[in-house]
Amino acid sequence: MTKIKLGMVGGGKDAFIGEVHRMAARLDNRYELVAGALSSDAKRAAVSAMELGISEKRSYASYKEMAKKEGKLKNGIDAVAIVTPNHLHADVATEFLNAGIHVICDKPLTSCLEDAEELAALVKSSGLVFAVTYNYSGYPMVRQAKEMIAKGDIGTVRVVQLEYAQDWLATNIEQDGQKQAAWRTNPEQAGAGGAIGDIGTHAFHLAEFITGLEANSLLADLDAFVGGRSLDDNANILLHYKNGAKGMLWVSQIASGKENGLRIRVYGTKAGIEWAQEDPNYLHFTPLGEPRRMITRSGAGAGELANAASRIPGGHPEGFIEGFANIYRETADLIEAHRDQRELNSLVPNVDDGLRGMRFIDKAVASNHAGSIWQSLDH
Amino acid sequence: MTKIKLGMVGGGKDAFIGEVHRMAARLDNRYELVAGALSSDAKRAAVSAMELGISEKRSYASYKEMAKKEGKLKNGIDAVAIVTPNHLHADVATEFLNAGIHVICDKPLTSCLEDAEELAALVKSSGLVFAVTYNYSGYPMVRQAKEMIAKGDIGTVRVVQLEYAQDWLATNIEQDGQKQAAWRTNPEQAGAGGAIGDIGTHAFHLAEFITGLEANSLLADLDAFVGGRSLDDNANILLHYKNGAKGMLWVSQIASGKENGLRIRVYGTKAGIEWAQEDPNYLHFTPLGEPRRMITRSGAGAGELANAASRIPGGHPEGFIEGFANIYRETADLIEAHRDQRELNSLVPNVDDGLRGMRFIDKAVASNHAGSIWQSLDH
Amino acid sequence: MTKIKLGMVGGGKDAFIGEVHRMAARLDNRYELVAGALSSDAKRAAVSAMELGISEKRSYASYKEMAKKEGKLKNGIDAVAIVTPNHLHADVATEFLNAGIHVICDKPLTSCLEDAEELAALVKSSGLVFAVTYNYSGYPMVRQAKEMIAKGDIGTVRVVQLEYAQDWLATNIEQDGQKQAAWRTNPEQAGAGGAIGDIGTHAFHLAEFITGLEANSLLADLDAFVGGRSLDDNANILLHYKNGAKGMLWVSQIASGKENGLRIRVYGTKAGIEWAQEDPNYLHFTPLGEPRRMITRSGAGAGELANAASRIPGGHPEGFIEGFANIYRETADLIEAHRDQRELNSLVPNVDDGLRGMRFIDKAVASNHAGSIWQSLDH
Amino acid sequence: MTKIKLGMVGGGKDAFIGEVHRMAARLDNRYELVAGALSSDAKRAAVSAMELGISEKRSYASYKEMAKKEGKLKNGIDAVAIVTPNHLHADVATEFLNAGIHVICDKPLTSCLEDAEELAALVKSSGLVFAVTYNYSGYPMVRQAKEMIAKGDIGTVRVVQLEYAQDWLATNIEQDGQKQAAWRTNPEQAGAGGAIGDIGTHAFHLAEFITGLEANSLLADLDAFVGGRSLDDNANILLHYKNGAKGMLWVSQIASGKENGLRIRVYGTKAGIEWAQEDPNYLHFTPLGEPRRMITRSGAGAGELANAASRIPGGHPEGFIEGFANIYRETADLIEAHRDQRELNSLVPNVDDGLRGMRFIDKAVASNHAGSIWQSLDH
Repeated sequence: MTKIKLGMVGGGKDAFIGEVHRMAARLDNRYELVAGALSSDAKRAAVSAMELGISEKRSYASYKEMAKKEGKLKNGIDAVAIVTPNHLHADVATEFLNAGIHVICDKPLTSCLEDAEELAALVKSSGLVFAVTYNYSGYPMVRQAKEMIAKGDIGTVRVVQLEYAQDWLATNIEQDGQKQAAWRTNPEQAGAGGAIGDIGTHAFHLAEFITGLEANSLLADLDAFVGGRSLDDNANILLHYKNGAKGMLWVSQIASGKENGLRIRVYGTKAGIEWAQEDPNYLHFTPLGEPRRMITRSGAGAGELANAASRIPGGHPEGFIEGFANIYRETADLIEAHRDQRELNSLVPNVDDGLRGMRFIDKAVASNHAGSIWQSLDH
Repeated sequence: MTKIKLGMVGGGKDAFIGEVHRMAARLDNRYELVAGALSSDAKRAAVSAMELGISEKRSYASYKEMAKKEGKLKNGIDAVAIVTPNHLHADVATEFLNAGIHVICDKPLTSCLEDAEELAALVKSSGLVFAVTYNYSGYPMVRQAKEMIAKGDIGTVRVVQLEYAQDWLATNIEQDGQKQAAWRTNPEQAGAGGAIGDIGTHAFHLAEFITGLEANSLLADLDAFVGGRSLDDNANILLHYKNGAKGMLWVSQIASGKENGLRIRVYGTKAGIEWAQEDPNYLHFTPLGEPRRMITRSGAGAGELANAASRIPGGHPEGFIEGFANIYRETADLIEAHRDQRELNSLVPNVDDGLRGMRFIDKAVASNHAGSIWQSLDH
Repeated sequence: MTKIKLGMVGGGKDAFIGEVHRMAARLDNRYELVAGALSSDAKRAAVSAMELGISEKRSYASYKEMAKKEGKLKNGIDAVAIVTPNHLHADVATEFLNAGIHVICDKPLTSCLEDAEELAALVKSSGLVFAVTYNYSGYPMVRQAKEMIAKGDIGTVRVVQLEYAQDWLATNIEQDGQKQAAWRTNPEQAGAGGAIGDIGTHAFHLAEFITGLEANSLLADLDAFVGGRSLDDNANILLHYKNGAKGMLWVSQIASGKENGLRIRVYGTKAGIEWAQEDPNYLHFTPLGEPRRMITRSGAGAGELANAASRIPGGHPEGFIEGFANIYRETADLIEAHRDQRELNSLVPNVDDGLRGMRFIDKAVASNHAGSIWQSLDH
Repeated sequence: MTKIKLGMVGGGKDAFIGEVHRMAARLDNRYELVAGALSSDAKRAAVSAMELGISEKRSYASYKEMAKKEGKLKNGIDAVAIVTPNHLHADVATEFLNAGIHVICDKPLTSCLEDAEELAALVKSSGLVFAVTYNYSGYPMVRQAKEMIAKGDIGTVRVVQLEYAQDWLATNIEQDGQKQAAWRTNPEQAGAGGAIGDIGTHAFHLAEFITGLEANSLLADLDAFVGGRSLDDNANILLHYKNGAKGMLWVSQIASGKENGLRIRVYGTKAGIEWAQEDPNYLHFTPLGEPRRMITRSGAGAGELANAASRIPGGHPEGFIEGFANIYRETADLIEAHRDQRELNSLVPNVDDGLRGMRFIDKAVASNHAGSIWQSLDH
């Protein structure tokens, strides 16, 4: 068993998402964290590295230096996890790709569509593995939904109902120094999308992932309800899918009382499926003319995809970290396949998924600007 | 105790909604059903009347005859319940109003906006009681939500999330002779709205009733997913409210697995409230920064409006019939107040609410026709 | 359509259960309330009668007088509803049975086992209809559970888990003049059982009704947690059923936060069923090795018994009053069958069910007294 | 950061609980698995070790050899995780304790009470850390419940309702070669308790952990419903707690449709709390006379203990592995405190908790044998 050598950019002490990436990487024992540029603050970077068991000389002050050096080390990192604010994703990824290092990048892909397009081109020409952590697609019952729809269990999809609602930005906490809020509400760091970028892209991806359908146009009504905020904190969006299905997507970070309410419901000619992230071990299946069923993770009725993404028996709940870890585990499979020059089909979201997310943001902003006019997502 | 003498037009044997009106009228012992034109089929009308204990001579072959005769009888009916298909509402109501008889009319008010406007004018000039059975507003916990929002418990409303989803029209049952489906999918009987008229009007009214806000514009994306259907069976609608709040409304009669899924969620600056018709005895209250609470009908935290609309202690569920009966009970109060020439504030939906529902249908159709363009609801 | 003429003993103004009986009687238009001895307080009786439209001369000061006179009237009452405190049930029922009048009696049947045995003998010799309002057996989904178990859908029953928990007696409200609490905690009016009599008998009956099994022994651990109370307010009971199934029953009126938490879960060799009174329109069916299903009232999968007990379509919740009204409606069927000298199978709980409830109370008290020793329920 | 060097006995390839222990150990990066006697089958042991990155020379053929050698190595293991069938726990633990190595032992502690008593004595004399993986006590919301009850939030505890129901032994799978089932239903490997040992001990511990109350007596009615089984697969148990509180505990492994249904509900004079393992991120709090509240992990209302046991924000569900990992993390704290000769209060279940569990099994069997007679748990 050889572990994949992992580096990390961003994710210093107390950053939420960095630690999530690390726990996800650890859970299945496939990665070893050996290098990092964990913070733009040098002292913070060093302390964080020490706490994580990264040796001093592989704790870098800048990601450029890290990419350059690690790319040349005999036992340099195989992959890097990028967990910085959005505006740095493209530059960091570019450095590491250019150094021949695989990339695991947090979402949204970049802070503007043009960067995303360039990055996508670079990834393709590099031939390297590039994973985007649309982690909700890693949940076993999301996989179950995907498998059931692909098998035709709900018939032809007609209706997609999406929502992703939180409340942590219901007040102006960015002005009180809450760091997570500060960069997410700042267009220079977050890009053109507020809530639509931070969480809307997750929902948008999830729907395409589960249904296997591509959205071809959208219409958006965006708001910044909280005073002094320039980016959207609430978005009401209509969607058209290529097969004629119709969608609605509500994205909000000001919905008082909501913690992390990502939910998807899909209705087809024969049945519906319903899944909620906060209760992730259950998939509700509602066949027309039959009683509603609840399919449980690792339980009766769970299929191949779900079981492959599960670690423990039904009734023993798995959660967010395990779903995230599935993305890491499957990215490890991709990296090993790359090393062995094997082809491997994978469910791991890739740079094209990341690019679509950026287009979603771009078009939502454009539609809203034009007074809620339909925008094509095809180009 | 003198009971109100009630007549009924429509609602013969086996009709669903007619029997609901009758149970609602009976529950509190305030009405006595004494006359009817229960069916356009004379034999069916007679049999139904007999079964209901209506005397032979007050079972009429036509509503016109009924209005004329009852209006002149010394002990003629005080009020009539109109439970016919939509296209007859206006004519029937007009006959009875002209005969000086109060009206309880099912929704939507009429089958076209013009009829609704004329009817509203007539009602006002008549001075008679006119109730529209937007019955969902009769549920105690809907009243609780209204009271809490009016008191400021959720702060300023920012977001309204509405849905009303069913599945009974997921297939083309209107072509198999299902009578309820046949008239509802027939523009000549139903009017310009399919699902938006049959159930969308309920949701639209419910939101204005609960929030106390008026919607001032909408944008609609309507579909008729089932082959051969000309009226909408699925509708995705965006709403703007006058205070700046934003809304989404999903209406569907083809959502496989949904029975009668009317749900409203409202999020304000201080808290949210969530209510689902299928579990009507619970109101979820989600204050920002505090744990979610479940307020139960007649339970701790239930206020004046809810308690006034409840009959039995908490934990003893009340349902659809009881909520409907509240509209009847409060209409009885209005009729008695009219008799006694007393003023009475009432929560009973009136002809203006009915008229707004018709405007909602009209504008949704217009918006959809124009490619999902915002339409004003003000005129 | 001739309505059954109904009288009522007890149930004056503001009594909870009397009004429930009246709403139940009204809902299906099968009864007409024409006589009453509504209160031992003469003035209260008269006012209540007037409000209910009972003529002055059929508002009686005593139930004895009422039984005697109504028994002789040409159009005297066909049936009487007894809604007094427990200790009066036997005497009142005896008077009316002796007058040839059918009886609808609230539970528990009497206040002591001996009275119950005598009453049962009298009922049998009289040949009259005698219904005991174990009303929870009237819920459609309870009927569904009964039908499914009878059909073998869950296989052989192994485990019965019962609970009926409330909190309204969590403090000593009987000493603050709460009338409902006062008589229920007073052994002279309530009999030997506190919570076990008031609500435990419901749960005990429900289990036998649903499973079709008879309990043959029990073991009890009773408490009176609230100071100054002599009757049980919490009971932990084990049960043995004749087929070898084992049961647990928790009864409590001091479970803080519980409103009316009656719940039954039955597990057999092939599946389980779960039902909760506070969400009565759902029956959960859990087949071994298949996903859990939710069967809804009037929905897909609902069978004959449930549908016969339902009034409106699925998704339109029915509640406590409707379930109670089923007992009334089916008692009306029994009374009409008696009049026509027809045999009629019925699900209405009868005097034997009432008697079993009294034996349950008696044996639970005996078991507890003996230090939680098994007691036979067979004699 | 120095990691604790961990060994494992049992838990070879495909064993469920061994992998759970390993994931739990990995999640927080506090342990390094460096040695093992992973299977009594030498080949299986070797393959498993290789897959886990354990060096060949520290993959042992027997736990005795492992204890002896590791105890003498300069960098030998600090701690061992024992994940064998029950009957080996005592011997294995004894070997490692005698070698001066800390122990993390799966539950139940041993296969008979006498062994448990001896082991407890040895642990105490050794001064070593001994953790018993009653892992459900590691869930954050279990900690929340403990903290709230300790603070008096529910008043004096009166009622404890416990259940732990599964269905995986509803049929005789032990005769079809299901290895997990085979040893658990075999008294020689499992000990005197079937379901009561395997899962009942978890529930029994959880109640004492959460309430802070000690049970002083129990009464049991045990069954082996499935043919050919000598150990209990269903148990109905009554409990008395020292403060006068009364409890019920239902344990079942034949409850068709139940996956891992551990649930606890506690009602006090002021409020109740309710928690279910399958939805572990929610704690329901039901104050008398106020609306029910749902406290979420890391959400509003969560206290110190819960927050200390949480890794990620509310709405991002944590599950079984994370709860288990809390036991590992806190055991790491104990081991480090031992190394540094610091005192440390800890919530980690210890050998006394394990011993109480064994007494629970012993007394339940005795009570059942005597015909459901109360047995003291004090000695």
